[in-house]
Amino acid sequence: MKPAQRLFVKTDLAIGSDVSLDANQAHYLANVLRLPMGAEVLVFNGRDGEWLATLSAIAKKGGTLTCVSQTRPQSNGSDLWLLFAPVKGDRTDYIVEKATELGVAGLVPVLTERTIVRKVNQERLTARCIEASEQCGRLSVPQVWDIAPLNGFYEETPDDGGIILFADEGGDAITIDQALASNSSKIAFLVGPEGGFTPAERTRLRACNHIIPVTLGPRILRADTAVYAGLALIQSAWGDMSR
Amino acid sequence: MKPAQRLFVKTDLAIGSDVSLDANQAHYLANVLRLPMGAEVLVFNGRDGEWLATLSAIAKKGGTLTCVSQTRPQSNGSDLWLLFAPVKGDRTDYIVEKATELGVAGLVPVLTERTIVRKVNQERLTARCIEASEQCGRLSVPQVWDIAPLNGFYEETPDDGGIILFADEGGDAITIDQALASNSSKIAFLVGPEGGFTPAERTRLRACNHIIPVTLGPRILRADTAVYAGLALIQSAWGDMSR
Repeated sequence: MKPAQRLFVKTDLAIGSDVSLDANQAHYLANVLRLPMGAEVLVFNGRDGEWLATLSAIAKKGGTLTCVSQTRPQSNGSDLWLLFAPVKGDRTDYIVEKATELGVAGLVPVLTERTIVRKVNQERLTARCIEASEQCGRLSVPQVWDIAPLNGFYEETPDDGGIILFADEGGDAITIDQALASNSSKIAFLVGPEGGFTPAERTRLRACNHIIPVTLGPRILRADTAVYAGLALIQSAWGDMSR
Repeated sequence: MKPAQRLFVKTDLAIGSDVSLDANQAHYLANVLRLPMGAEVLVFNGRDGEWLATLSAIAKKGGTLTCVSQTRPQSNGSDLWLLFAPVKGDRTDYIVEKATELGVAGLVPVLTERTIVRKVNQERLTARCIEASEQCGRLSVPQVWDIAPLNGFYEETPDDGGIILFADEGGDAITIDQALASNSSKIAFLVGPEGGFTPAERTRLRACNHIIPVTLGPRILRADTAVYAGLALIQSAWGDMSR
């Protein structure tokens, strides 16, 4: 039977190594899932692949898993980043959850001229990334950066061949498939706030050679919808949307 | 300047015709947007294209718009349907909103063996469809059906050449691009509940010639994420994801 739970941990993983559980993890395994001693759990740390481990000690404030065998070797996903203007309410939480499921390497909240939400709770968003990574079977957890002004991310041409695709409502924007016809080593997908980029921002973005305006179709998508559609299309054209 | 608001209405639209506003619409235009008499609004009814109209009367319990000129002729979007098992909390509302933005013709909530949410509020979901249609620039509002058992939708092969793509975690599922390599007149995209289809359901689905299991990549997506990714990929491969 498949283990009931996958956990992200920080410890190195190897045959026989012990993994300490924090109080939350111990509580969840013992009291929510009611796992008995010896129960199987999958663990990953973003470096050593995925391991089958068994519950070898449990107490109120912690517990221990012991690694039994590696179930999957470490592999790195696409070098795909999401730059996004945070939006109101729970939509930012969903953006973080779904970008994690869609395989981003990292999430960068950006301040644009029309960004209304000017702060993010980096710790809470990271917790959401960890939970989504545990559930979706990823072998790593995306990095969540603190919010920073957008222009710091694009005004210098990257020396690693990276490109930025930005969701744009301009009439000349090309499709994501067209934009990815030539290979890139690293892609960032940029989605502006509700209300979009200002004309001045669009002019500055479009003046950069490594930034490509892309269309997401004839309808005007909300910012969160644009994130989901764009990431799915990028993974399909360039990354890993097949099994 | 672009009109501040688009409204879905039921009346026929033609030059000079009056459009009655209900109390909610009148309240929204007069008290929330504070539009003055003569202000411009866009209206559509799913049949006569989009029209520029001006506010010609306003009162507490209603008001009137008068059609000035057609801004877009009626066009029909893709014949793309979403069959989905409703999920808990606000995730079903978001599914409805985003499927509307992604251009579905209709939404069909289905009961599967593991569907936990067994009822939907059809009126509330329709209101969400209308709001999303107004905002995203669609010329029609998707139909929302009442919830019904899944097997009623697939056990007879449709005579209109329609196919059903279903999000499946089986190892042999093909990509959406591969599934849509041959033309279809009508597509339904089927997403099961959290926990997926039962083995018996999968066997029955896979026994139908017009039903194709498709993969959404190596990660296990939540039901709502699968809806967003699948619809975006279908629209890109088959429908209207370019401008």
